[in-house]
Amino acid sequence: MQRNPCFKQYSHDYLFVEIGKRVQAFEQTHPDANLISLGVGDTTEPLPSSIVDEIVKKARELGTREGYRGYPSSVGDRELREKIAECIYCNTISPDEIFISDGAKCDIGRFQWLFGKKTTMTVQDPSYPVYTATHFLSGKKKVYTLSCCPKNNFFPKIENFPRTDLIYLCSPNNPTGTVLTHDQLERIVTIAKRTKAFILFDAAYAAYIRDPALPQTIYEISGAKEVAIEVGSFSKLAGFSGVRLGWTVIPKTVCFDEGTWVGKDWTTIVTTFFNGVSHLSKAGGLAALTDEGRRATRAICDSYLANAALLRKTMEAIGYKCYGGVNAPYLWVDLNGGSSWEIFDNFLRRAHLITTPGVGFGKGGEGYLRLSAFGEKERILEASCRLQSVCSLRNS
Amino acid sequence: MQRNPCFKQYSHDYLFVEIGKRVQAFEQTHPDANLISLGVGDTTEPLPSSIVDEIVKKARELGTREGYRGYPSSVGDRELREKIAECIYCNTISPDEIFISDGAKCDIGRFQWLFGKKTTMTVQDPSYPVYTATHFLSGKKKVYTLSCCPKNNFFPKIENFPRTDLIYLCSPNNPTGTVLTHDQLERIVTIAKRTKAFILFDAAYAAYIRDPALPQTIYEISGAKEVAIEVGSFSKLAGFSGVRLGWTVIPKTVCFDEGTWVGKDWTTIVTTFFNGVSHLSKAGGLAALTDEGRRATRAICDSYLANAALLRKTMEAIGYKCYGGVNAPYLWVDLNGGSSWEIFDNFLRRAHLITTPGVGFGKGGEGYLRLSAFGEKERILEASCRLQSVCSLRNS
Repeated sequence: MQRNPCFKQYSHDYLFVEIGKRVQAFEQTHPDANLISLGVGDTTEPLPSSIVDEIVKKARELGTREGYRGYPSSVGDRELREKIAECIYCNTISPDEIFISDGAKCDIGRFQWLFGKKTTMTVQDPSYPVYTATHFLSGKKKVYTLSCCPKNNFFPKIENFPRTDLIYLCSPNNPTGTVLTHDQLERIVTIAKRTKAFILFDAAYAAYIRDPALPQTIYEISGAKEVAIEVGSFSKLAGFSGVRLGWTVIPKTVCFDEGTWVGKDWTTIVTTFFNGVSHLSKAGGLAALTDEGRRATRAICDSYLANAALLRKTMEAIGYKCYGGVNAPYLWVDLNGGSSWEIFDNFLRRAHLITTPGVGFGKGGEGYLRLSAFGEKERILEASCRLQSVCSLRNS
Repeated sequence: MQRNPCFKQYSHDYLFVEIGKRVQAFEQTHPDANLISLGVGDTTEPLPSSIVDEIVKKARELGTREGYRGYPSSVGDRELREKIAECIYCNTISPDEIFISDGAKCDIGRFQWLFGKKTTMTVQDPSYPVYTATHFLSGKKKVYTLSCCPKNNFFPKIENFPRTDLIYLCSPNNPTGTVLTHDQLERIVTIAKRTKAFILFDAAYAAYIRDPALPQTIYEISGAKEVAIEVGSFSKLAGFSGVRLGWTVIPKTVCFDEGTWVGKDWTTIVTTFFNGVSHLSKAGGLAALTDEGRRATRAICDSYLANAALLRKTMEAIGYKCYGGVNAPYLWVDLNGGSSWEIFDNFLRRAHLITTPGVGFGKGGEGYLRLSAFGEKERILEASCRLQSVCSLRNS
């Protein structure tokens, strides 16, 4: 049996696997180190009690004859689709256009089934590695990168780039923490419409936008419903990274050239390659979208944003220029010409801090570090102190 | 944007979607009908309380600072991998060779990423439609079918068939309810080894085997560890179809021609296209594999087997020849030359029973009906009465 050549060629380790290896090696030689992670973007605050109560209730129900349920719907139960339509999209999207999933990453993976091997893509550089990894591992080849850096205000003149079938966008951005404006998104939608391209819009961090002038979903842009597929997630919205729940929106007007609604093929994909989400996760998701759940989860997002503000203040005080971290849980630190992995190792060794090397998100990330603001307040405070003392050592 | 030609060509609706449509149409014209489903193989008995308690405990933990956990491991947490190695494989398989998933169907889907487009497969006919659907939808083409019918005792002379890269096997079989013997599996393993093919062994119904002479896993066969990947599931083992939990075994000795362990590429797949299972499902799975959990879930499987025995007795009493239903929750009914969909419609109209037309599992299923023994005892008794009265009408 021959190995799939896509895997042979794709030697690049998944970023967080490589970080894990380095951290593990450090821990072996420093077993007493009290490491603080500003690395992988993973939530740390407990689930709000109103959400826990609904999961508990559902678990108890599954233990009764009346409340037991078998297979969930592969596209998602109506109740949750309606609740997402109402709470996230103010009913501007129909529940029929929303598909429930076990997470944005999994849907981004399944997305690859939709298109043939010759499909080309444009991706922001730096970007979440899964966009290109899933593209290459599924045998597709052509990728164009939009270099996003401070010089172009993290948004290059997309009009100058070659046409591709797909345009991946992430806003608030992982890793840079920057947010695309109405004006910027309008320009991309116009291009997608003109060139008959599709946009995959990753809105996993939308819940962190506090500036009312910034779009929280691409569907705020006129015409986006004809070209954009949006992926959403409860992971960062409600701390569900370990509960597993997300969704994908495919408006009825997003169609292939020959007229078929993309959602028709997506339905085939989720009924064939997937089997729906756990009733337990669904119950949690419904609870997260009640008034009480929304208040509680918003307060948690606010606490992460306060962490981001503190980290930004700290890094700026010790002389680093920073981006993001205002309407996003990520901070993008300019290393003044330093190498990403070198400074990563440096912070690990000298401050016992785990960060994420920018270069792990693409060539354009070299010379940057991503700091994640997910973490307990006390730990972030401690991280801030360590950063200051490491820096004062450096400056002395 | 062009539509993926695989989807254009693949017009075949997923079987249970088509059944759903027919049932819905019937319900619209017969709103008062009390339908009983012997159709989709979906569990109906409540979760045992010891499992519910552990899920509840985990939910409560996720609501505390100490107990909160974010992303699960994409390959599965060690604890559950160890428990499966111990309980299902008597530690003949290492935990490192076990990968936790959100269900067997999802892993069968992800399986397609492992192999290039030219990969050929052999599949039993009839068989679970997802094997060929995922093959075709991922752009692969060549499929050879092993016609399995009463004439060849549901196992043709596989030695006479052309070589393919993959051999899909399901035992206890869905839909026929028959179980492959040691001798039969040995012959297949020998061929796979000789032709350097891989076997995908679907053991989702292994918990229903009561005859100690029948193999519950393909790894009981000598040499299988060099060629076989096994998929397992908590859905039918512990009623987790709505909780979502399964696993895949890739022994360290299952390698591509050039020597790479298949589990290496599988790790890349699950870390890129997947993000691990819910902590809630994992907690349930661990509880299902304790002594108490195993006693409780075995009792539930026994109740489904009692249903199968009753249905088999009923169908035989009214003159149908039946297969399976002894070490499996499915019964395969020979319709004496009748057409699958015709008899499906007939049972729906005349007895208000939902069944599954055999032809939905492949050409070889025409002339058969699959009866699922999942259901509450009282409902199965009622189904049995209806079958008898419909038949007495027919015979009168």
